[in-house]
Order: sequence, then structure tokens, then C-alpha cells
Amino acid sequence: MSLDTTSPVALAQALIRCASVTPEEGGALAFLDDLLSKAGFRVERPVFSEPGTPDIENFYARIGTSGPCLMFAGHTDVVPPGEPSAWSHGPFSGEVANGLLYGRGAVDMKGGIACKLAATLAFLRERPAFAGSIAFLITGDEEGPAINGTVKLLTWAKERGERFDHCLLGEPTNPSRLGEMIKIGRRGSLTGAITVHGRQGHVAYPHRAENPIPGLLRLCSALLSTPLDGGTAHFDASNLEFTTVDVGNAATNVIPASAKAVFNIRFNESWTAQTLGDEIRRRLEEAAGTVVRFSLDLQPSNSPAFLTEPDAFVELVSEAIAAETGLTPKLSTTGGTSDARFIKDACPVIEFGLVGETMHQVDECVAVADLERLTAIYGRVLDAYFSKGGS
Amino acid sequence: MSLDTTSPVALAQALIRCASVTPEEGGALAFLDDLLSKAGFRVERPVFSEPGTPDIENFYARIGTSGPCLMFAGHTDVVPPGEPSAWSHGPFSGEVANGLLYGRGAVDMKGGIACKLAATLAFLRERPAFAGSIAFLITGDEEGPAINGTVKLLTWAKERGERFDHCLLGEPTNPSRLGEMIKIGRRGSLTGAITVHGRQGHVAYPHRAENPIPGLLRLCSALLSTPLDGGTAHFDASNLEFTTVDVGNAATNVIPASAKAVFNIRFNESWTAQTLGDEIRRRLEEAAGTVVRFSLDLQPSNSPAFLTEPDAFVELVSEAIAAETGLTPKLSTTGGTSDARFIKDACPVIEFGLVGETMHQVDECVAVADLERLTAIYGRVLDAYFSKGGS
Ligand SMILES: [Zn+2]
Ligand SMILES: [Zn+2]
Repeated sequence: MSLDTTSPVALAQALIRCASVTPEEGGALAFLDDLLSKAGFRVERPVFSEPGTPDIENFYARIGTSGPCLMFAGHTDVVPPGEPSAWSHGPFSGEVANGLLYGRGAVDMKGGIACKLAATLAFLRERPAFAGSIAFLITGDEEGPAINGTVKLLTWAKERGERFDHCLLGEPTNPSRLGEMIKIGRRGSLTGAITVHGRQGHVAYPHRAENPIPGLLRLCSALLSTPLDGGTAHFDASNLEFTTVDVGNAATNVIPASAKAVFNIRFNESWTAQTLGDEIRRRLEEAAGTVVRFSLDLQPSNSPAFLTEPDAFVELVSEAIAAETGLTPKLSTTGGTSDARFIKDACPVIEFGLVGETMHQVDECVAVADLERLTAIYGRVLDAYFSKGGS
Repeated sequence: MSLDTTSPVALAQALIRCASVTPEEGGALAFLDDLLSKAGFRVERPVFSEPGTPDIENFYARIGTSGPCLMFAGHTDVVPPGEPSAWSHGPFSGEVANGLLYGRGAVDMKGGIACKLAATLAFLRERPAFAGSIAFLITGDEEGPAINGTVKLLTWAKERGERFDHCLLGEPTNPSRLGEMIKIGRRGSLTGAITVHGRQGHVAYPHRAENPIPGLLRLCSALLSTPLDGGTAHFDASNLEFTTVDVGNAATNVIPASAKAVFNIRFNESWTAQTLGDEIRRRLEEAAGTVVRFSLDLQPSNSPAFLTEPDAFVELVSEAIAAETGLTPKLSTTGGTSDARFIKDACPVIEFGLVGETMHQVDECVAVADLERLTAIYGRVLDAYFSKGGS
């Protein structure tokens, strides 16, 4: 059976059939290797290691040596399918039914990679002598600990002298309809724990004890009482959520010795993890006064807020989307974190992919029509990018 | 070896050497039986049962049939000694060193029972034809679940037509010095749990979730913001302590579905468990408004607040204390709960015993001098009570 490499559906099916649940390569990178090598790419598949984590295979391919270089980034690893019998079509079957392609990774993000492959192969057939370079930077460790993935792959590429002008990351960015949303940045993430220290005792003798819970209520309320900021031109206001509060005291006649709350903040470009951590500590100290004894433990953050300022490249991608979908995509910075937070140190990065509704769920699926339209969008991006010299 | 029944130290030693950790009788009640039977008491040792709890042996003895009847109440069971090697003297050895008698139960409350026995035996030798009755109502289930103890023993006695005029309970009531404090009542205890219900979601998409933690902070703060009352003539202000707050969410990127806080209130005679529970619910509803969805679970309370109004009996006991110690005892309602909360339904009850400092601890001990002084106090109480006809 020979593969139709002009069909994003056929390519997505082939990728979905590789059971590449993190950390398994599952044949997905070998498939890319075969396809892109035949098309003239130089391919490398570095394996990265770190004590305590599984070895991970990664993928780098490039065609062309001159600039500008457009990098397509992504990942072939997928989250576990859960109970396969819960799926109406096998999670690794790649079946098409009623215009929908089913399978783990259909939208996150084997489908997106398939569209990039189909668009690139079509572009190269049409313009084999284009001026510039195209690179694929694909990791097998995005859904896992992300330790042996994009961060190391970027360092590895940099050490080899690889330089990139723009990156298009193919995560599913559209909430419900293809063309709605480009991500031009991501909020940062900071996690911390507040522990209030008291003195254990019997509830009947509160003056001999020091209950830490009222102090914790006071500190938590202080953090929630005033917004961190009012948002910026491209970002929502930074938002703090308490994710847990725990004391773990089963004895209803005992005042506990300490009480702990954990929070996570999704913050905008007004802050770095450092300045934000300082502000949180300042607010807590103010609320605590000399009354509440507390400690604040901030987790090291590798998720800064970042923004790719809307420029000619963003405009080029927006125009390609509008031409195929009739929609003007919103330039958004909402949602969780992605590998774009690492890529932004190598070159300007924006994200545009499929519709994310079913990602990480049972019966993850993508409309066949969306795969074809996204391929056409990526094709327009390549055409415009290399006719204008990377703008 | 014959026992010197005029010596409270010898009697306390004999009781301490019975390893009567709840629910074990350990020979302690058999010892009382032997001693009081010989002194002319009618003795019964009813065993009470309840599915799911161990059978418990209890003790009732009475001498005399006419009124007034003075009841001495107490318990011979003790809390576990913990690691015996941590004790400087074996927890069941009953050793005396440097004027201190060591052992589990030395103050709580085998020591107190020994003083009552010694005082009663001396009183009977001196006034065998006294007008009235003396009863001993002793349980083996005060430190345990307290299900097969005083409550059932009082019902059992009532069914047999036993009536009491006053009760002196021998719990250790003095914080640090014999004679400091009589307990003329106890605060009630009410435990409840507040659960705030939200909707689970990802911290990056807070608008799709509903974090229950801010709502819980609001409800808890509302309960703490206004005192429940200002105290009464004989009681401190009612006091609410949060004993635990728990969410149990380990994922720092997940907004949890619910959050729970548990509180315990020690309340005075301004409240019943019912009126207090109603007030708590009213305050929570007011703070919750239409915004916070919560449920309140109140544990059934068998600990009402109660007060034995200071009267001639309290005065009689106070005078006996003052005569032996030179101190005017404070009439207090502080501290935890005791079996007095059950006895108060049978007759007026007050509590006076040894110094509680070491109770439930390693190296629990009592001053030999205190045992002798408390015996003298109980002796004065008996003398005064039966000369005045129970006042
Ligand atoms: Zn993804
Ligand atoms: Zn006790």
C-alpha cells in the first residue's frame, strides 16, 4: 500500500497508528524521517537523557542552508488514551467516520504535523529552488516531563549553528472553529505554597495553643482582595487560583500546628516569576504583620510570560487564515503553557493549529475538512513567506 | 501483705498496679468491690454492651437507704501509658520517689478515688450510724468511647430507684495547686463541617471552573469575624476553633471541585447545640448570599453546656478546701468536657480532685502530700454534709 503524501488525512492516519504515548517513539519519528529524507531534508534524531527520566528520541530536519528559515515546531508524543473500550473508534486506529478522523493525537497534534508535512511536500514539488530554508523541530517529550524535549533540542540545534527566523508551532489553538485564534504569546505560570505556623493544643484550652488557620485565612484573603494587575494590550489580567488548602488534622478536639495553602498564578508580561514572587511575599508580609508566622515556598518557574509582538509575520499568517476560512483570527495569549515559551528564545514564535475541543479526551477527532483547510493555510504561509523573503 | 486502708497512698498504689487501660477492668473494680463490701456497702458490677464496642464493666456501691445521698463519681480506666521505657518509674509500678507517687492514673483519677475511699472508710469508722447514704458510681469507660459507661450506669441506677442529692466528681480540677479550682459546670461542645461546592477545571481556564476555596475563605472568615457571645457570669465567651481545612488536591494546575473546613465550638449556657447550630447556619447563609454553594454538617452533640448554680453544697465544699489548703477555690467552668455533663441530669454535680498538670502524660504523678490533703478535704465534706443533712 503506497502512501498519498499529498493527503493530510493519509499522513495523519499513518501518524495516529504509531502508538507514541510519551515516552514511546512508536514509529512516529521514523515515519517523519523516511518522508522528509526522501524529500531532500537532512534529518537527525538526537536522543536526550537525564537521570530519573526515560530517554527520549527527538527529531530535527532541515532543507536549505540560506535564510530566511521558517521552522515548523511540534510534538509527536500523545497523552495516554485511557480505557480503549471507551472510544467509539480505536484510539490508534485512525478511522474516518462521518467526515471525522478519530484517534489519540488527531488534533494534539499529529493532525497539525500532517498538515505541515502535506503543505511542505506540495510546496517543494512546486518550488524546489525556493530561496531560504524550512526546518522541522519535533519532540517526543511535550506531554511528559518535558525535560528531554524542546529545551534540549533547541540547545542542541544552537550548538550546531542552526538559526531560525520565525517559528510556527502547530498546537491546537482554535477553541471551536478553524481560523478563530492565533496564539501570539502565553501567560507565565508560578506556583507557591504558604505555610502558617502555629502551636498545637486542645480546643478546650485555645489560650495555650495558637491556631494557624485564622492566620492562613487572613493571608489567603489578602492575596485575593486586590487584583495583581489590570491586564495589558495583549494579555488578560494576571490571575491567582488557590489549588489546595490542607491541614490534615482528623482530631476534632485538637488545634493543629500548621496549615498550608498552594496557589498557582497565570501572569502576563507585567511580571517575571521573580518580580511576581517578590510582590506576593510583600503582600503576605503586609497582611501577616507581627501576628502571623508564615513561610512562602515558590516553585522554580520555567514558564515566563512572553509575547510575540504582532508584526509582518503575524499579518502574513493571519492573511493566509482569512483567505481560506473567511475569519479574522483573534491574536490571543490565553490558555495554558506550551513549548512556545522555550522557542521564543530562539526566534519569534506564534501558534496556529486545529480545533482543540477534543484534545486529551476520549474520541479525540478532527474534521477531514479542517485537515485539508489547515494544509491550504500552511501552504499559503510557505508561499507568502518565501516570496517575500521572510518579510 | 495487709493493706492500710486509712492510707490514700497505699490505696492509690493498689489501684495503679491494676493495668486498667480502657476497656480492661484490670482488677481495679474488683479491688473496690472487696474494700467497700467489707465496709458494709451493697455492691453491683453491671457489664454494659453495645454492638461494635467492647463490653465494659462498671461499678455501683451504696451504704445507707435514707437521704440525703452523696454520690462520689469517677472512673478507674486510664489512657494507655505509651512507651513504658519513657517513664522514669514503671507506669503500673505505683512507685513513690521524692514525695511523688508515679503511675498512669495517679491524678486522673485513681488518686482521687483513693482519697474518697480513705475518707469514706475513716468517716464510717467514726460515724457508723450517720443519717443518709453514700454512693460510689464508678465507670470503666470514661477515657474510651464512653458508650458503655456513665450514661448507661445512671440509667441503670435510675431504673433501680436509686436517687442522689449531690455528686462530687473526682476529676483533677486544679491547674497547678491543690485547692485552686472547683468546676461547677462545663462548656458544651459542638463540631461541624462546612463544605463549599465548586466546579473542577484547569487553572488556565478559571472562567470554565468555579474555585470553591475563595468561598470557603469567605465563610470561615465570617464565622470568625463576630464573637458568638460575651460570656456569662460563670462562663467565658463561647469559642470557635477551626480544627482542619482540607482540599487534598495534589495537581497544581487543577482548580478543585470542593473544599472543606471543620470547626469545634466550646459554648456556654447561652446556647444549646440546637440554637448554636441554627446561628452558625444563619451566619453562613448570610455570608454565602447567592454566590457560595455550601453544605453544613453538624455532628450530633451529647455535650451540652451546664452549670451547677453556686449554692450551699458548693459553699460546703469550698469551705472544706479552704480549711485544709488556705485557698479560696475559683468556681470555674473552663476546660474540656467530663462525665459531669451526664450526671447533672441525675443531681447537682461539682468537680474537685487533684492537680491535673501531668494527666495523660509520661511520668504522671501526684504529690503524696496532696493525696493526704485531698483525703482530709473529702473527710471534711462528709462530716459537714451529714451533720447538716445535705444542706
Ligand atoms: Zn500538544
Ligand atoms: Zn479523668
